[in-house]
Amino acid sequence: MLRLGYPATIAAEWLRDLPAGIELVPVSDKMDHDVEIDVWIPDPYAARAMRAWPRLRGVKLVLSMLAGTEWIPGTVGPHVTICNARGAHNISTAEWTLTAILAMLKYLPLYLDIQASGLWKRRFEASAHYARITADPRPMHPDVMQEELTGKTVLLVGYGAIGQEIERMLAPFHVQMLRVARTARATPPVHPVAELDRLLPQAEIVVLILPANPQSIGLIGRRQLALMRQGALLVNAARGPVVDTDALVQALQSGRIRAALDVTDPEPLPAGHPLWSCPNLIITPHIGGSTPQFTPRSLRVAADELRRYMNGEPLRNVVQAAVDRNP
Amino acid sequence: MLRLGYPATIAAEWLRDLPAGIELVPVSDKMDHDVEIDVWIPDPYAARAMRAWPRLRGVKLVLSMLAGTEWIPGTVGPHVTICNARGAHNISTAEWTLTAILAMLKYLPLYLDIQASGLWKRRFEASAHYARITADPRPMHPDVMQEELTGKTVLLVGYGAIGQEIERMLAPFHVQMLRVARTARATPPVHPVAELDRLLPQAEIVVLILPANPQSIGLIGRRQLALMRQGALLVNAARGPVVDTDALVQALQSGRIRAALDVTDPEPLPAGHPLWSCPNLIITPHIGGSTPQFTPRSLRVAADELRRYMNGEPLRNVVQAAVDRNP
Repeated sequence: MLRLGYPATIAAEWLRDLPAGIELVPVSDKMDHDVEIDVWIPDPYAARAMRAWPRLRGVKLVLSMLAGTEWIPGTVGPHVTICNARGAHNISTAEWTLTAILAMLKYLPLYLDIQASGLWKRRFEASAHYARITADPRPMHPDVMQEELTGKTVLLVGYGAIGQEIERMLAPFHVQMLRVARTARATPPVHPVAELDRLLPQAEIVVLILPANPQSIGLIGRRQLALMRQGALLVNAARGPVVDTDALVQALQSGRIRAALDVTDPEPLPAGHPLWSCPNLIITPHIGGSTPQFTPRSLRVAADELRRYMNGEPLRNVVQAAVDRNP
Repeated sequence: MLRLGYPATIAAEWLRDLPAGIELVPVSDKMDHDVEIDVWIPDPYAARAMRAWPRLRGVKLVLSMLAGTEWIPGTVGPHVTICNARGAHNISTAEWTLTAILAMLKYLPLYLDIQASGLWKRRFEASAHYARITADPRPMHPDVMQEELTGKTVLLVGYGAIGQEIERMLAPFHVQMLRVARTARATPPVHPVAELDRLLPQAEIVVLILPANPQSIGLIGRRQLALMRQGALLVNAARGPVVDTDALVQALQSGRIRAALDVTDPEPLPAGHPLWSCPNLIITPHIGGSTPQFTPRSLRVAADELRRYMNGEPLRNVVQAAVDRNP
């Protein structure tokens, strides 16, 4: 019978959707004995999973609960097949992105500060904020207290499954969409990354949702930030190193742009880092994917892959194919 | 030539869309002489408009820039027709509502507080918050850091133009919609207000978006709040007096529900009021409609009505028809 190692921290009720006819083996980083398993679902906390690995014997297939699998190949080596949980983060990350955009356009940081002060009349600070950040000198009447998403131009940098989910959630706001990705496409129009600098000045909102790799690291540097419009919003729902942190701190401190980050570089962001206190910035501590739906959704992806493995069908989300031990 | 009085505080560029062949008369609350006008667009700040009124002569039609016209009949009397700016707030108010829902489900107040403290590791407070507010005791793995809107049940209380706009913006989240309004309907199903108490326990999010009138004032009292689910979110995008403030303070302080309010009772909320410091609450100081798009959008509604008036066509947004002076 196939033996499946799963994180001992996951409650039994979440394992219902796994195929019948397998033996479930709880795996913990505190085990004092070796265990023999065929397939391993590692703990989503990489440190815990890496501590458990030396006790595992016979692993042929790793099914990650996450989209990112950075630590796995170096730990398990080349003779193991690795699949990620493609799709498990789409909804939660896209929802975080919508939240970040709307919260910034509606000046929630200012209003939560006003709420804490208990002074209703401070709402007029919003008008001054609008004039300053957008550099819109037109007298508005009544006073502007927040901005609209409807009708804005959004540049998606990255157009995988999560990027497309973000576009779907933006649809009711009739935004003008611009798209950039590694692979250019005709329908809908997706521009190659080489056109990023040309498109940046057109967008009021720039959303980063692309994988971290040697091509994307540092993609948003001093030059790209300088090409963004006055008051434009940079949203990083991807990985911290895609943005040059020093350049971002400078752009924020000068009042040129706004930003919302669920990821940072370095991460965790250490106490006292200048990014924490930049103006016009929302930081959430890498929480975009962590909802109550994550565990069941992620395990459904794993269960589907496991079923294919047991039936000898091709796997869907292979990020590393095993190299034969005895070729 | 028809004479139109408009708020002197509105810049000339916003008046472009008004019909040709009218005389534009700026009206200010600081005028030291009477002015003769046929149609009046009052200043959106009621106090300023009420101060200007005694200087106006000959007004037959008032075109409000706002949806709410509460102060106008008592000021101008029964011999003047009053139209509101139906539709001018739809987008901005619906966007505010989406923002409020998402910000609360993503724990933005907690994360902005963590950002201010500069302590990344405080993110684990979110898991305790989730368990407490939802009373969901199931161990989740990895830790829950925020919730999803997707798949939740939303009860719309009020189903006019803004309510329908909110529903449109909620569509990508595949929410289960329940609707209550004064007028029941079959498609889509809209329940009569009498069924409110039966529907409240089914919803995870309750959105108030109905006009304030004798039937709706106090609609959400102690009993209705007690019928809401543990951790359910009450969003008031309507008018403060629709909710019993004392009952709301109690429900929030006991940790039973969450709320997001753009309106309060009393309003403005005075310094020191207990609502300011309730937990699980976002207050914004009545800013839902005040975006840069408000002035042009509202004046387009007025321009359309003015064109009808000049052509002798029926007006669209009459909230008070003039009573003849000499019947």
